[in-house]
Amino acid sequence: MPDFRDVRKKGFDKRAAVVDVLDWIDREVPLLPAESIPVVHASQRVLAADVSSTICVPDFDRAMMDGYAIVAESFHGASPHHPLPMQIVDTSMPGKPATATVDNDAVVQIMTGAPMPQGANAVLPFELVEQQGSQCFAIESVPAKKNVGYVGEDIRTGDTVAKRFQRLRPQDIGLLASVGVSDVSVFPQPRVRVIISGNEIVPTGSPRGVHQIFDSNGPMLTALIERDGGIPEVVFCKDDEDSLCDAISEPADVVLVSGGTSVGAEDLAPGIIQRLGDLVFHGIAMRPSSPTGVGKIGEQTFVFLLPGNPVSCLCAYDFFAGRAIRKLGGRDPAFPYLKSRLPLRRKISSVLGRMDYCRVKVVDQQIEPIAISGASVLSSLTKANGFVLIDPKSEGIDAGELADVYLFQAT
Amino acid sequence: MPDFRDVRKKGFDKRAAVVDVLDWIDREVPLLPAESIPVVHASQRVLAADVSSTICVPDFDRAMMDGYAIVAESFHGASPHHPLPMQIVDTSMPGKPATATVDNDAVVQIMTGAPMPQGANAVLPFELVEQQGSQCFAIESVPAKKNVGYVGEDIRTGDTVAKRFQRLRPQDIGLLASVGVSDVSVFPQPRVRVIISGNEIVPTGSPRGVHQIFDSNGPMLTALIERDGGIPEVVFCKDDEDSLCDAISEPADVVLVSGGTSVGAEDLAPGIIQRLGDLVFHGIAMRPSSPTGVGKIGEQTFVFLLPGNPVSCLCAYDFFAGRAIRKLGGRDPAFPYLKSRLPLRRKISSVLGRMDYCRVKVVDQQIEPIAISGASVLSSLTKANGFVLIDPKSEGIDAGELADVYLFQAT
Repeated sequence: MPDFRDVRKKGFDKRAAVVDVLDWIDREVPLLPAESIPVVHASQRVLAADVSSTICVPDFDRAMMDGYAIVAESFHGASPHHPLPMQIVDTSMPGKPATATVDNDAVVQIMTGAPMPQGANAVLPFELVEQQGSQCFAIESVPAKKNVGYVGEDIRTGDTVAKRFQRLRPQDIGLLASVGVSDVSVFPQPRVRVIISGNEIVPTGSPRGVHQIFDSNGPMLTALIERDGGIPEVVFCKDDEDSLCDAISEPADVVLVSGGTSVGAEDLAPGIIQRLGDLVFHGIAMRPSSPTGVGKIGEQTFVFLLPGNPVSCLCAYDFFAGRAIRKLGGRDPAFPYLKSRLPLRRKISSVLGRMDYCRVKVVDQQIEPIAISGASVLSSLTKANGFVLIDPKSEGIDAGELADVYLFQAT
Repeated sequence: MPDFRDVRKKGFDKRAAVVDVLDWIDREVPLLPAESIPVVHASQRVLAADVSSTICVPDFDRAMMDGYAIVAESFHGASPHHPLPMQIVDTSMPGKPATATVDNDAVVQIMTGAPMPQGANAVLPFELVEQQGSQCFAIESVPAKKNVGYVGEDIRTGDTVAKRFQRLRPQDIGLLASVGVSDVSVFPQPRVRVIISGNEIVPTGSPRGVHQIFDSNGPMLTALIERDGGIPEVVFCKDDEDSLCDAISEPADVVLVSGGTSVGAEDLAPGIIQRLGDLVFHGIAMRPSSPTGVGKIGEQTFVFLLPGNPVSCLCAYDFFAGRAIRKLGGRDPAFPYLKSRLPLRRKISSVLGRMDYCRVKVVDQQIEPIAISGASVLSSLTKANGFVLIDPKSEGIDAGELADVYLFQAT
């Protein structure tokens, strides 16, 4: 019969402050070296370098309305009472320019976006032209340059069209494509291995023995990693030294171990990390998630030991692992949640020296703390639509006071 | 030489009100028939049916702390001055329950999450037990049920754990997995064909002739469709009747045609839609995007004719095509942007009877309209971080007045 009192009673010698762990992540986690990908696949990716245009947009003078390309001065004084005749000598269509030259009363019919013909300096819209028999007449005049889009009016050669660290929205992708960019330099998507450890854990939907439980952290972490721009790979692993050691040693940018990460008799992961690399933090002054571990193997791989219980797992992911993944991929390392400042409907108590992560529900623009019977109660997180953090320097927040609430899902 | 004055001068007989087009979309566009997919791939997908749990969570009584499973009453009165001896008869680990029974002073050492042994009704934490030589003593008591998680405490069999139309967040995925759900019924991702039409358009990065322009709408629409949960496929198509007709006729849930969609001589798409199905709206009272068309081919395919110029294209997509795609896939059909109410820094003018889509930039909690030299100026959209809509009943919004601003990117 194993006796795990000794190892257990030790507990954590010392719990690190949340802020110190965040500082370490911000200091240690680098940006991954840039990669080049097609612009059509770059939506929501983060640019690793500024992009300058190598062309002008437009790069030829073009009509901005349907009508007639004219020499503006030739029709000066035209009016309904004084129509001036025009001779249509050619047509200019987008991609199919006119070859004739515009001069005096010789005009070219032209469509929006089509190249301006030689000699023309304005477009007279169709509405300002009348047809009488086979003859057309201008019944109004326009000044020179009217209804013409000139070279470089939108973008000039050398203009910066997108910046480093910009996360590409659909319109940014459109702009890059419009200046002929086919590939862009972006930060890679971090490769994240998720190791689900625990002999009692089985993948959801698998046959399950008595006292076994379905894994919820694998699918949840997969979704979280994808949200943060990483590429997840989930591995199930028995609670034995060799299997865990092998799973942790495979190459990856980030390794997450869920379960077996505290200081109990069967918590093997901390010792393995300590042996393979450096477990910089183990035990953090927060609730939930205090048994979280943060470390590094070699120069390339960041390791996060996440508590097995799902609420603690999500909390530890969002605070630490997600931050590293977001930073590696060039994203803003902060929580990817909207923040709002609203009054509390009921008091939240905490203790000095510990950061508390309180699940809440925003109802009628007020923050309602969710009653929690245990950190393993995942349904408390699905009922929540956000969380409030209680600073280690505070003993809580009173009813009616304003608090910052992070909202789980942006639309 | 083609003469396109006749067709052009007709213009749009009548422009539909934006609100009528939106009503038609909301009325006509159905939900796609549900499909079943693995829960691990269901992040951000929309549930097509409520999900009930077929198990209890937990489904066995379990320890909520590390310590000793005891009969609470046996240690009543224990204190540091009155320690009571205990006999450790077995160990219970997660997935590895004890076989011995707890009774009187016989206790089982137990870890968090492990099954409660027979006879025990509470867990006495390690911290409340002292070892003297080989003998353990309880130095405090706990009431019955303390530190035990009972069957069904979080979720009971039959409880609804997720609802129809819920868009699955990481924690929802975790919850579904924890109750053993391996597949979920969701609305499919709409298949959207994007047809880029125009002889002058070449794919970005391709060799380009004089007076040809790089396509920006294909990559931009791809990103927009992906954002809205659709599966895009982009096809380039020459401006001829047969090619366009073939491209439009291929099966899809939604067909978008970019370019050649107005009433000009080379605008072939409207006639083709009219022939293959029903072009319900063509010409909409808005700026930009007035040459937008909306229709249907058969019972299954919705068609949107989007103006070729990129700003109008994005605007028409967001108003109409995106709405249909979001609705087909079970998402909220409204704009997928956050809305905020802020004061205008400068006046925006509009005209009665037309909906205006004004690109703006929010600076210091004020809305700054972006000066626009043309609807084709894509860079105006990339400089913007949102837009304001001017109602057809309004002639504009004065400086200092509050306006609703839609913000382009949520974090």
